[in-house]
Amino acid sequence: METQEKEQICPRFHRAIELVGKRWTGAIIRVLMNGPRRFTEILEAIPGLHDRLLSERLKELEAAGIVQRIVYPETPVRIEYTLTEMGKDLERVVNEVQRWANRWFPPPPS
Amino acid sequence: METQEKEQICPRFHRAIELVGKRWTGAIIRVLMNGPRRFTEILEAIPGLHDRLLSERLKELEAAGIVQRIVYPETPVRIEYTLTEMGKDLERVVNEVQRWANRWFPPPPS
Repeated sequence: METQEKEQICPRFHRAIELVGKRWTGAIIRVLMNGPRRFTEILEAIPGLHDRLLSERLKELEAAGIVQRIVYPETPVRIEYTLTEMGKDLERVVNEVQRWANRWFPPPPS
Repeated sequence: METQEKEQICPRFHRAIELVGKRWTGAIIRVLMNGPRRFTEILEAIPGLHDRLLSERLKELEAAGIVQRIVYPETPVRIEYTLTEMGKDLERVVNEVQRWANRWFPPPPS
């Protein structure tokens, strides 16, 4: 795509990267790739993330159709967050980001 | 990766997604995938992006080793921004985000 008329970024690409790349969102999706998780499990898996922000991000991801909130009518009530089909389809994006990160960033100190 | 000890997100993944997903950054990388571009060309390709923010993002991407600023000693001086090898290696990430966006978002009105 060279500049013929006027070069403009694809609006769908832009929307997708702004949604998935939003602060903490990529990390939350990454955690849920491993399976359904409770709120506190997600929180513990992401150092530095606080509960108010996680709650906000999960609501955004629910509204976008990427995450589903499932309430199990047990006592006490159990609530889990899981990826929808749309969310699971981000696996290839997640894998490519991981591959790129492994190649270009030094391994964390063990 | 089920919770054996304590499930924690990969720090390299987190760093990568926060870097690439930062507001406007994904769009800038997408434009530079098409080849070297001048500052104003990038600006025009991304509706809503303003010059101060583009300047800031380009500096961040330079510092991260993803973008290179090339000065051609012509009159007047020509300055172009291009992806480094590390930046070009994001092509598979960009392609997967585009594929996902095409699948899940309705096409823009033509």
